[in-house]
Amino acid sequence: MGPRTPTQRAPRTRVHNMLVSLDGFAAGDTVTVDQPIGGAELLFSRFDGRVIDGVDGADAPITVDRALISLWGQGIGAEIMGRRKFGPQTGGWSDDGWQGWWGDAPPFRTPVFVLTHHPREPIEFGNGTSFHFIDASPEDALRRAQEAAGGLDVRIGGGPSTVRQFLEADLIDFLHLTIVPVVLGTGVRLLDGLAGIEDRFTIETISTDGLTHQLWNRDEAGRRRR
Amino acid sequence: MGPRTPTQRAPRTRVHNMLVSLDGFAAGDTVTVDQPIGGAELLFSRFDGRVIDGVDGADAPITVDRALISLWGQGIGAEIMGRRKFGPQTGGWSDDGWQGWWGDAPPFRTPVFVLTHHPREPIEFGNGTSFHFIDASPEDALRRAQEAAGGLDVRIGGGPSTVRQFLEADLIDFLHLTIVPVVLGTGVRLLDGLAGIEDRFTIETISTDGLTHQLWNRDEAGRRRR
Repeated sequence: MGPRTPTQRAPRTRVHNMLVSLDGFAAGDTVTVDQPIGGAELLFSRFDGRVIDGVDGADAPITVDRALISLWGQGIGAEIMGRRKFGPQTGGWSDDGWQGWWGDAPPFRTPVFVLTHHPREPIEFGNGTSFHFIDASPEDALRRAQEAAGGLDVRIGGGPSTVRQFLEADLIDFLHLTIVPVVLGTGVRLLDGLAGIEDRFTIETISTDGLTHQLWNRDEAGRRRR
Repeated sequence: MGPRTPTQRAPRTRVHNMLVSLDGFAAGDTVTVDQPIGGAELLFSRFDGRVIDGVDGADAPITVDRALISLWGQGIGAEIMGRRKFGPQTGGWSDDGWQGWWGDAPPFRTPVFVLTHHPREPIEFGNGTSFHFIDASPEDALRRAQEAAGGLDVRIGGGPSTVRQFLEADLIDFLHLTIVPVVLGTGVRLLDGLAGIEDRFTIETISTDGLTHQLWNRDEAGRRRR
């Protein structure tokens, strides 16, 4: 398609495709090279990552589940992720050449800010993806990401502990939560310590074949409070 | 965002955002310059055209309705429309400089094939949109649009009589129908003469706040039949 006419609007901070088990877990306990989701793979059994940038990323059918997944990239100019989403390592970085899970064309195609207490040199890919390693509070990380996003929205990419920190700091404008009918019993919970947080949002809920989607939009009163 | 990795898949023929009243009408009886939808404006009272290319086209909130609207442009390489969608004129073209309803940046940003018994010279816009006026059967028009789409999907853009012709010819792979809770009493019906056509599709239905969305995906058996 040809170039799109830019739109004027207030940038948002968004979370997409946050999959949560019936008992509230959004990731497993430990991440290894073999288990990027740390034992919570069941959550992703119904998730089709090929359509994060559009339902044309996979063959038919076009479903409501896929339509919601495809919101992921719309109008996003930068992502912030936790270190555990970038890789299984902890502590200081070793010289092992690790560049993330995604091979030589990571799907982000924007600047990505990786939160870590161990900053290192950025990594750039040919497709527009670059990883920047920063030791920053949620507020400071968001400020840097917004500068890099050039007026577009910032996605908080996870994992769940990172999303929870941004929710605690009252920095999230939109959250797409998908409740998956599995019981994991262990892992990282998304909403621990956030009692009452639903009051800040208007929550739309629909159910598809076995999945429940919630679209949390921050109330304007909440936006003004900041 | 940076460039996207192309995907390999079978091109589809898709219809998006087909709004239908409770009594089955998808357009009014007559189109004039002042009434582009011919008296069926009520259908569009809940439709936000700003998000056809992405939910970032408008300020908050991000809703299921908007997510479904935003499928419109995903992976589309060409559109086919009826003449009545292009303008209110009938018969031979007069030299009135009419270039469609959309000003100098039509939202299509791809080649658009306008079905008419009165071919004329194409019109090109700077944003990737071009209008090509052809006198062709649905099959021939689709063939030309698929050539122009370069492996991407073709959208049948309406109005309802045009979509009905393509449904009759068994050429539609995907249809997003939105049932709007209004009774129009008159106009152009989408599904007249198509009794039993639902058998060719798997239909997913969800309801949002007052709207009912149906996603019709052609069954594989139907695809093979062609």
